[in-house]
Amino acid sequence: MSRLLPFICKRTLRPKRLIQVLTPNVCMLPNSTKFSTKSPKNIYLVDDTDNENHGPQRNSNIYTYRTYTCTELRRENVGERVTLCGWLEFQRMNKFLVIRDGYGHTQLLIKDQDVETQLLVKTLPYESVIKVTGTVLTRPEGMINKNQETGEVEVLIETFEVLNKANDNLPFNIREYQKAKEALRMKFRYIDLRFEGMQRNMRVRSDLLMAMRTYLVNECNFVDVETPTLFKATPGGAQEFIVPTRFPGQFYSLVQSPQQFKQMLMAGAIDRYFQIARCYRDEGSRSDRQPEFTQLDIEMSFTDCKGVMNLVEELLQYSWPSILKPLPRRFPQITYKEAMEKYGTDKPDLRFHFHLQNCTVACKKLATTDNFAAYYILFEEPHVHLSTSIKQKLKRLSQNYPKAKFIQSKITNWKDWFLRMSGVFGEESCDILRQLIHAKGNSVLFLAYGDWKHVVSLLGTCRLEYVEHVEAQGIKVKDDSFHPVWVTDFPLFEEGENANGLQSNHHPFTAPHPEDVGLLQTEPLKARSLAYDLVLNGNEIAGGSIRIHDSRQQKFIFDLLNIDDQKMTYMLEMLASGCPPHGGIALGLDRLLATMLNTPSIRDVIAFPKTFEGRDPITGAPSPINEHDKKLYSIDISNKSS
Amino acid sequence: MSRLLPFICKRTLRPKRLIQVLTPNVCMLPNSTKFSTKSPKNIYLVDDTDNENHGPQRNSNIYTYRTYTCTELRRENVGERVTLCGWLEFQRMNKFLVIRDGYGHTQLLIKDQDVETQLLVKTLPYESVIKVTGTVLTRPEGMINKNQETGEVEVLIETFEVLNKANDNLPFNIREYQKAKEALRMKFRYIDLRFEGMQRNMRVRSDLLMAMRTYLVNECNFVDVETPTLFKATPGGAQEFIVPTRFPGQFYSLVQSPQQFKQMLMAGAIDRYFQIARCYRDEGSRSDRQPEFTQLDIEMSFTDCKGVMNLVEELLQYSWPSILKPLPRRFPQITYKEAMEKYGTDKPDLRFHFHLQNCTVACKKLATTDNFAAYYILFEEPHVHLSTSIKQKLKRLSQNYPKAKFIQSKITNWKDWFLRMSGVFGEESCDILRQLIHAKGNSVLFLAYGDWKHVVSLLGTCRLEYVEHVEAQGIKVKDDSFHPVWVTDFPLFEEGENANGLQSNHHPFTAPHPEDVGLLQTEPLKARSLAYDLVLNGNEIAGGSIRIHDSRQQKFIFDLLNIDDQKMTYMLEMLASGCPPHGGIALGLDRLLATMLNTPSIRDVIAFPKTFEGRDPITGAPSPINEHDKKLYSIDISNKSS
Repeated sequence: MSRLLPFICKRTLRPKRLIQVLTPNVCMLPNSTKFSTKSPKNIYLVDDTDNENHGPQRNSNIYTYRTYTCTELRRENVGERVTLCGWLEFQRMNKFLVIRDGYGHTQLLIKDQDVETQLLVKTLPYESVIKVTGTVLTRPEGMINKNQETGEVEVLIETFEVLNKANDNLPFNIREYQKAKEALRMKFRYIDLRFEGMQRNMRVRSDLLMAMRTYLVNECNFVDVETPTLFKATPGGAQEFIVPTRFPGQFYSLVQSPQQFKQMLMAGAIDRYFQIARCYRDEGSRSDRQPEFTQLDIEMSFTDCKGVMNLVEELLQYSWPSILKPLPRRFPQITYKEAMEKYGTDKPDLRFHFHLQNCTVACKKLATTDNFAAYYILFEEPHVHLSTSIKQKLKRLSQNYPKAKFIQSKITNWKDWFLRMSGVFGEESCDILRQLIHAKGNSVLFLAYGDWKHVVSLLGTCRLEYVEHVEAQGIKVKDDSFHPVWVTDFPLFEEGENANGLQSNHHPFTAPHPEDVGLLQTEPLKARSLAYDLVLNGNEIAGGSIRIHDSRQQKFIFDLLNIDDQKMTYMLEMLASGCPPHGGIALGLDRLLATMLNTPSIRDVIAFPKTFEGRDPITGAPSPINEHDKKLYSIDISNKSS
Repeated sequence: MSRLLPFICKRTLRPKRLIQVLTPNVCMLPNSTKFSTKSPKNIYLVDDTDNENHGPQRNSNIYTYRTYTCTELRRENVGERVTLCGWLEFQRMNKFLVIRDGYGHTQLLIKDQDVETQLLVKTLPYESVIKVTGTVLTRPEGMINKNQETGEVEVLIETFEVLNKANDNLPFNIREYQKAKEALRMKFRYIDLRFEGMQRNMRVRSDLLMAMRTYLVNECNFVDVETPTLFKATPGGAQEFIVPTRFPGQFYSLVQSPQQFKQMLMAGAIDRYFQIARCYRDEGSRSDRQPEFTQLDIEMSFTDCKGVMNLVEELLQYSWPSILKPLPRRFPQITYKEAMEKYGTDKPDLRFHFHLQNCTVACKKLATTDNFAAYYILFEEPHVHLSTSIKQKLKRLSQNYPKAKFIQSKITNWKDWFLRMSGVFGEESCDILRQLIHAKGNSVLFLAYGDWKHVVSLLGTCRLEYVEHVEAQGIKVKDDSFHPVWVTDFPLFEEGENANGLQSNHHPFTAPHPEDVGLLQTEPLKARSLAYDLVLNGNEIAGGSIRIHDSRQQKFIFDLLNIDDQKMTYMLEMLASGCPPHGGIALGLDRLLATMLNTPSIRDVIAFPKTFEGRDPITGAPSPINEHDKKLYSIDISNKSS
């Protein structure tokens, strides 16, 4: 096992002035490229730096009765009397043992004459917890293991103590990571956490959070404020969990984000706020979502879009683990409109090209509405793999976009294809199309036309699915680096079900774009907002906006959205009490970590995740309540099901 | 307003080796003794150090459109063109303005010829948010304000912009702190937070948490792990909030502490865990409790009581703000038994003496049970103030201890008093009592006899109440310093209502004292545990224990407590999977901060507290739910009230 620690953010220890903060890779996790075979490796840097000179080391042993962790002993320790504690991972010939802890492994040696320990070890189940005192020896020349941190030494046992015997037949073996299915790993998470990969995920998570806090507090003077999670239901919010109280019929809601509290903090002169906040959302069963999740929540007064975006870029630069490939110096920006046009999504994955191409001009004869558009994506050799199965899958997916007509073709003879297409588009259109598409050889082409939003969204899905398919054929398409991108200029509203046909695209506190304030009265769906999302490799990892600070404008927006002012009086009063202009952002830390560490699921970066159904796999929670609770909270269970 | 920032923990910036960590007062909050008049001052150090050389300053202005906060300008800035943003706090003669932000104040000057701004300011309500650009000038000699950080300079306004006009007639004025009642302050918390005292509380809180994290992560290699708050109900736990789910009749519980999760982390080889964790407890209306609260939760493997206690002492030394009087180098320890004997409570307030004195030997003739005991406390001049009102109050309080007889006397003539007492105790007993009590002059004596626990508890209450009363007469009794003390050797169980008449004193995972394991079978109520509490100035601020790591012992304890093993199988399996010996502690941060800052209530150190009834004062939450939620969560509101 590699030495996972110290994953010390240098800057935490030796802060420099802000001007230097932008240097990438300030966090050091030395030698950590040697992760377990299952770990995806391509995001890690290969040329890792030496780990001996990174300033003061963290002391992992103070306050315990061990003298070293199982990863710390080196040739320099030879002759020292040491105490190690950990799990018995392996034994050979009742003589050579491997002790493991969360940091690494050390080889132990039982003396030939120590028959008692030999007998003890013979029947001691693996994963029993032991405490060993002994002397550090150099391993014989042929036995040195260059791949192990402690591979040059072993410990000759003097005293051997079993601290806690493990059961035989644990549900899975720590040496066979690959063999445990996720359901079993989740049920016995306390065993699963012993694996190197999970240790890395938990420790990287902790260090990332610490580095973020260090930047925000020590460099930028942000104030960490804890806000309540038991709150009032937000009108027009997504599904919130409710919590009954001893007041009959009255409930708290669990907050979806500290949005309103952080805005109140701005009015309260805590002008640089952050919090690593627990948030709650009841979305029922949705893959790779959790009912509770963590976000880095940030808000600033007297700032603008650029201020918040710069902060987030520099924060990520500062806290980015050095074992990972670096982030670009500055993150590109793209408008919502442009992202939809080029990538068919507001979460563009910039690890590969294959943009959508506009061919509306060629198909305009088919136009029936103002929104009509036609787009295509072209794949040429070596990306030509349109099998029946992927074709069927894409056809199925296209049914989610009923206002778009979808054509997918594997083309070997372009002349034939244009001939066929002239039946659909007419000859004139086909001529224009021919001029637009320059391909000659074998190609795969996806083309869609109809309602603009359906067309681009369908081709955006197509783009992702087809590239996955091509990569599954062993053809590398995606770049291994990190590709962050800001998406800006979102529409303020989208079509909704209220009387005005509107709903917030982000939330009702988002400020409209100053250039589009005039549109709010006339064509609100065309008004842009001052919202921005940060997308990393196709995952939305942060979203924020400049907020409304004018009480009258906020009231106007509530009215447009049919939100009852009476329920939001406190927000309007807050804005009118002397509230500075302000804006902020929230980073989804679970998603960010999963993207950083390239894990298959966000569950891999959460210590105790729920299943996709929302169940706790260890205890089976949720569970029925007793009569006492029903009485205390004045609730009955009804049979009406939703 | 004093300059609250930077409250930089030096050690965060320039870490030293652990050997140096024990030096007290490593955090600097310069010049912060000049708090608002309302703040209790006696805990603060008067001789504050100079704030200019504390290493790199935090940059409060990056990412904003101001160039300085309202506390930063000095004589060195004269001639500089600056931009300030903040609240209009005051104006005089339409010419001199005071701008305020969360950091301090600056004086602004309108040019004589700038009639436009003069007119604007004339009608601009105080608390409007403004942005000012201008040039820094030296104040005329007679106008220098030595009590203000920025008192040597003023800013001559060039451009003046109203960013957000405040309403006239806000509920209270920021210059009249004393006049707002708490209910009003809570309802308009976003205004209340602008006060200097609240700014200090929030910023000290943030910095304390950061310093604690820095010690744990950067010095001691602890791992910050977020554990779930949506969990399963704990058998035998205190009242937990419940959360309905989409599975009809099935509920999560909101965790009271991460206890079980942190023990699983120990089994999972995260051997040094901490978390600043949100916890929940539904205790109905109880003064100075909150339905959600924050604790610093810590757990370690391979440790013992001493290890955990040393960690907490050094953690507090490290993170203790330097503006406060220092903590002692090491904290004294007292056993539960000794605390009860001397102070009549397991939360002894060591800021003053007046111990309980045992006089059982003098009263043993009155003994009816084995538990019989007699104790007294004596107060001599100048602490002799037994008025009728305090006498009545103590009499009322004594009714909570029905198994104790209570005598309270103001004694001017001891001879008479002993004569009177001989009627109660008999002459022989009075002779012994006379030998025990050495007082001669005017005294106040409280004496109680009967059941030991009732007797000492009654006198413990008496001790606190009477000293409060004496201090209210203007006689100083309590020392102004901080007096932490560890209370150890708690009983493992106390009398309870289950079949065995037992309940856990701490929680069912607490390890029994190794010397008392034999008593578990025979006299469980006499068995001590490996639990320890940290008490500061009479407030319990932390509690922890070494936990049971042996699955069979844990099962035995569950059985004694009538806890259904079936519901706790996962914990027993966890212990049997190879779980190291471990122990930990939880520090109540709200209580700690309130004690540190000597605030009247924990509400003063929480940004958005609930009322004592558990209501959110801003929104009025909790509130009724709609039919959609009732249907979604399969609940009806019943009329059965608890």
